[in-house]
Amino acid sequence: MSTAPGTHWQVSATRRIEYDLLNVADVFDPRSDALLSMGRVQDGRRFVVVDACVHAHHGARICAYFAQHRVDARIITLPGGEGGKTLEAWLSVLRELDGFPIHRRDEPVIAIGGGVLTDVVGYAAASYRRGVPHIKVPTTLMGYVDAAVGIKTGINFNGHKNRLGNFEPPRRVLLDRSLLRTLSPRHLRNGLCEIVKLAVIRDAALFRLLEQHGAASLATAFQDARGGDILDRAIGGMLEELAPNLHEEELARKVDFGHTFSYGLETRHGDDLLHGEAVLLDILVSTAIARRRSLLGAAAAERIFAVVDHLGLAPDLALLDAELMWQSLLDRVEHRNGLQRVPLPAAVGECTFVNDIARAEIEASIQTLHDRTTTDHDRIAER
Amino acid sequence: MSTAPGTHWQVSATRRIEYDLLNVADVFDPRSDALLSMGRVQDGRRFVVVDACVHAHHGARICAYFAQHRVDARIITLPGGEGGKTLEAWLSVLRELDGFPIHRRDEPVIAIGGGVLTDVVGYAAASYRRGVPHIKVPTTLMGYVDAAVGIKTGINFNGHKNRLGNFEPPRRVLLDRSLLRTLSPRHLRNGLCEIVKLAVIRDAALFRLLEQHGAASLATAFQDARGGDILDRAIGGMLEELAPNLHEEELARKVDFGHTFSYGLETRHGDDLLHGEAVLLDILVSTAIARRRSLLGAAAAERIFAVVDHLGLAPDLALLDAELMWQSLLDRVEHRNGLQRVPLPAAVGECTFVNDIARAEIEASIQTLHDRTTTDHDRIAER
Ligand SMILES: NC(=O)c1ccc[n+]([C@@H]2O[C@H](COP(=O)([O-])OP(=O)(O)OC[C@H]3O[C@@H](n4cnc5c(N)ncnc54)[C@H](O)[C@@H]3O)[C@@H](O)[C@H]2O)c1
Ligand SMILES: NC(=O)c1ccc[n+]([C@@H]2O[C@H](COP(=O)([O-])OP(=O)(O)OC[C@H]3O[C@@H](n4cnc5c(N)ncnc54)[C@H](O)[C@@H]3O)[C@@H](O)[C@H]2O)c1
Repeated sequence: MSTAPGTHWQVSATRRIEYDLLNVADVFDPRSDALLSMGRVQDGRRFVVVDACVHAHHGARICAYFAQHRVDARIITLPGGEGGKTLEAWLSVLRELDGFPIHRRDEPVIAIGGGVLTDVVGYAAASYRRGVPHIKVPTTLMGYVDAAVGIKTGINFNGHKNRLGNFEPPRRVLLDRSLLRTLSPRHLRNGLCEIVKLAVIRDAALFRLLEQHGAASLATAFQDARGGDILDRAIGGMLEELAPNLHEEELARKVDFGHTFSYGLETRHGDDLLHGEAVLLDILVSTAIARRRSLLGAAAAERIFAVVDHLGLAPDLALLDAELMWQSLLDRVEHRNGLQRVPLPAAVGECTFVNDIARAEIEASIQTLHDRTTTDHDRIAER
Repeated sequence: MSTAPGTHWQVSATRRIEYDLLNVADVFDPRSDALLSMGRVQDGRRFVVVDACVHAHHGARICAYFAQHRVDARIITLPGGEGGKTLEAWLSVLRELDGFPIHRRDEPVIAIGGGVLTDVVGYAAASYRRGVPHIKVPTTLMGYVDAAVGIKTGINFNGHKNRLGNFEPPRRVLLDRSLLRTLSPRHLRNGLCEIVKLAVIRDAALFRLLEQHGAASLATAFQDARGGDILDRAIGGMLEELAPNLHEEELARKVDFGHTFSYGLETRHGDDLLHGEAVLLDILVSTAIARRRSLLGAAAAERIFAVVDHLGLAPDLALLDAELMWQSLLDRVEHRNGLQRVPLPAAVGECTFVNDIARAEIEASIQTLHDRTTTDHDRIAER
């Protein structure tokens, strides 16, 4: 801080952000100390919030885990699903937390669940007493490769997705892919869409892994060896993008690929369209726009469309709506401070940013996608 | 970020925090560009929240200011007073803000008011879209020397003061002491208690300024030259304490002097006891505790009691309640992560921390204060 008394004071400081992500084999195994590895254990207390579905599968083991370690745990559940990402859910967590006093620094809140749960609980922990530490245990693929990896928290508000929230690092993220076993195929595909996003926009090697092993790994809920490789590579890549820009000071972000038009789609279709499904539709439209502009070669565009087919992601193109997506782009312009900053693929694994997408271009690209499917179907019908 | 794929990722980053505080002569003078000095002016928009009392005095000038600069401003008001520091007030600001789109980065929210308003609006700005920038214009003495100086925001929740909030730096703080002219004597005294706090715990020179010129400056609402010196010195001192520890990573904080027992008093007495008034009661009890322990010499303790009398701060000792203050201390132990970390004066302008205050000590110190007043009154009666 430099001081020139009487006229002007300048405050300059830095906040250190430190957290880690650990692969853990069986996080609720009573012999593992991972869940209690941050903060004090002796005479310790933990406030634990568990996704209701996860609780149905693992509640008894979670309870036994804390009992075994003689930690006084208050375990509460929250429903998953986008409909649970509300102001009310956030307030209910805060009221429960306020009724179970924890030390401000060494008794981290533990969030066990999908992206909805970790976003809501992360935001609650960030807000309580101006921030108490928290640990995340993602239980969905979306959480595993995306929601639990960065430092963004949030809830939906006033009809808008993630309108409230903040940037709050977890203390630690525990990655136990065996939790994905109970996840529904639809939610596995949902998370896979974010992996496709990363592959297309920044990682040609990950893209090849998906082409060669993606479908087989998906069938095992990523429990096979290649599944582990895909997950590790996705997380590593995600962190390489996020870590230098945790607070989004740079607004042109590769990881926003698939997150421009998806925003409006998600807002309109709510629980019927999952985040990753909306992202996939955006990826397809963005790819078609890049192709129409000749930013992207024909072969690369075909590989992108082909991997989506091969993985069985089955996007519902009927949901594409040019006006909605144009409005979504306009909202993103506010969010990205006055410029579109839309990431588009320049090759498989390469990204470029554009600021001049026109409404007509979105319309034409949607048409291209429809034509392409019709042609495919015709081709299949002809055989 | 260091990466060891497959097992462990470590994220290390820093967030830069930069803001400044400027003395400004007449912040609503249309010729001044201070209010619009951050962010874009051309085609710009501003969301402005003004304390209702301030709006009554300056609303027309504030409106004219933005009109003159051709900035599309949405000006809303909020009631001041601790009763206004609610979840509902925070949500109402967020709903209004969401209905008046602003760019995410270069159209800062402007908060004009006392500590209640800047805490609520700072927290709303910090939460909207995970944080949009804001500027603070404190209009109370409490805001001027304390609430608007640091980066803490907050609202009351579940019957607890500041239970929700976060650490969010403003972009800039505009200090216009002419705004203090309309402030009531009680609120001037209220802010002065925080200046006394700083003087006692860290700044013997500021203490001497208060002894010599405090009462006269108070009478002019700090519009005289000495008043300016007192304010500048208080702000400079406050920043020296806050800037190296903006996120309270160090929990033993000198500026927490007067903020241990006050917490319970404020919670019980709500709007009847102002923050600074509660802080003053705490300062007196803390001083008596320090004196009883012989941490503090008799002469120093007398100077502290005398300056409080001299400034006419008139603490209401009848509110002191040992059980309430003991409970408050226990809550602060949670907040300060398991230790009391209570700052006590070791001399005028010197601080020490203790962790072993007993309930009986609080009781005895309250008794000392009562005895002292009785003796004073007797002394006066005897004359
Ligand atoms: N913070 C971020 O950076 C970030 C990034 C991406 C997505 N998100 C957010 O994540 C949310 C989507 O997350 P999600 O897809 O995980 O949704 P989700 O949390 O709603 O979980 C999906 C469903 O799976 C259930 N479930 C969770 N774990 C399970 C398990 N192991 N077995 C069986 N069922 C299980 C849940 O109850 C829910 O019904 C969105 O709100 C999105 O905005 C946040
Ligand atoms: N964030 C921090 O670091 C911090 C530090 C200290 C205090 N605070 C908070 O500040 C709050 C107290 O602030 P406060 O004392 O300013 O109270 P306040 O904001 O309620 O203002 C006091 C009263 O003065 C009125 N007022 C404001 N400006 C005026 C003006 N120029 N002329 C006439 N009337 C005016 C208000 O309407 C209100 O009635 C507490 O909630 C406390 O927790 C926060």
